[in-house]
Amino acid sequence: MLFGWHTVKAALENPQRKFHRLVMTENAARRLDEDGTRLPLQPELVRPEAIAALAGGEAVHQGLYAEADSLPAPELDDVAAGMLLVLDQITDPHNVGAMLRSAAAFAVSAVVMTERHSPAASGALAKAASGALEYVPIVTVGNLARALDELKERNVLLVGLDSAAGADLAAARLTAPLALIAGAEGRGLRRLTREHCDIVASLALPGRIKSLNVSNATAIALSIAAAKLAPVPTP
Amino acid sequence: MLFGWHTVKAALENPQRKFHRLVMTENAARRLDEDGTRLPLQPELVRPEAIAALAGGEAVHQGLYAEADSLPAPELDDVAAGMLLVLDQITDPHNVGAMLRSAAAFAVSAVVMTERHSPAASGALAKAASGALEYVPIVTVGNLARALDELKERNVLLVGLDSAAGADLAAARLTAPLALIAGAEGRGLRRLTREHCDIVASLALPGRIKSLNVSNATAIALSIAAAKLAPVPTP
Repeated sequence: MLFGWHTVKAALENPQRKFHRLVMTENAARRLDEDGTRLPLQPELVRPEAIAALAGGEAVHQGLYAEADSLPAPELDDVAAGMLLVLDQITDPHNVGAMLRSAAAFAVSAVVMTERHSPAASGALAKAASGALEYVPIVTVGNLARALDELKERNVLLVGLDSAAGADLAAARLTAPLALIAGAEGRGLRRLTREHCDIVASLALPGRIKSLNVSNATAIALSIAAAKLAPVPTP
Repeated sequence: MLFGWHTVKAALENPQRKFHRLVMTENAARRLDEDGTRLPLQPELVRPEAIAALAGGEAVHQGLYAEADSLPAPELDDVAAGMLLVLDQITDPHNVGAMLRSAAAFAVSAVVMTERHSPAASGALAKAASGALEYVPIVTVGNLARALDELKERNVLLVGLDSAAGADLAAARLTAPLALIAGAEGRGLRRLTREHCDIVASLALPGRIKSLNVSNATAIALSIAAAKLAPVPTP
């Protein structure tokens, strides 16, 4: 289930998506047409209330609703390059959606999450991801420790984020391929996850609060790591 | 209305808070006692269900609920130093809560927001802020353009964030006092707000998505600006 302008539009522009149903307002259909977005099947044109009923009353659907298959999930082997983002049992769909969006913005090669204790690929997650589901492969694994072992075998540097760690991420020596690993808010990285990390680092926070919302912390970490792996020339 | 462990605990430890009511589970009372947190008034000890009924069924209250006066709001004049964060009509309480938390973590001197088109200081906002309401003064202004004029008179550099801007924030020349100005998702900075800015800059995003969740973007911007204003020595 997908809803929201950016989310559905990005899905429509992804040739890998298989759609079953497409519901939109006349207004949304006109805007898609103006943008040159081609529709893979005949849409049902309805009034906004009908979409609200499908997407859920609270949903910000912006006149677009679709039902589609999940995208094919790649194997870990195929994505162990560049920068990866690993989520250790982060369950809030708004946080995970925002993190997928940041992952897409920083060109990560894949987001790895556990089959259990992860949010379902729900409409709320897809909406928060704002189209990112189309651009970032999601690898779901049964056992995270084993997945980290596999990444290590492929020479991926495992960098855990922990607000209590003494090492500053900005001062750490980071090399590609690299995986940033974020833990759930409150509980943080699980013990076994942490033991697999090559580096456990925190962000330099000069203020009185020493930990951030997990999607905020991850965004900063991605920004720091991206700059270190491929320094952007300053104009 | 305040609920959640970090939120209520930070409020209890703030001598400026005036409490009217304090409701907690026996378990939460014991944990506060173990942490040495002193209670300003006699708490009502109840079962978790009673707190869920007060805080709202969906609320993650963690056994703590309180009713207290809002903190006294400072004047703009008193906070025009260091780094400020200005919110141009950002309404989502989860985003604003996370932004307050990041603001506290990066030691901003105040968060400025408009009286209208800002979220009420609700329980959901306070919970997302995770105690930050106690550490960051919030200045609410009737007219943002006039407030920006005032800041300019006090030599505050006004730096607008805009994902479509050509200038990279990381390459901009930033000096204190400085105000980072974030606009609403989708709409961005209002025209008049943008015209007041000394610099309008974006974040360097190498991926296919070119804009982030507003709290994620702001967290990265605060991190970049904090590092530029007071470079942290690397160990």
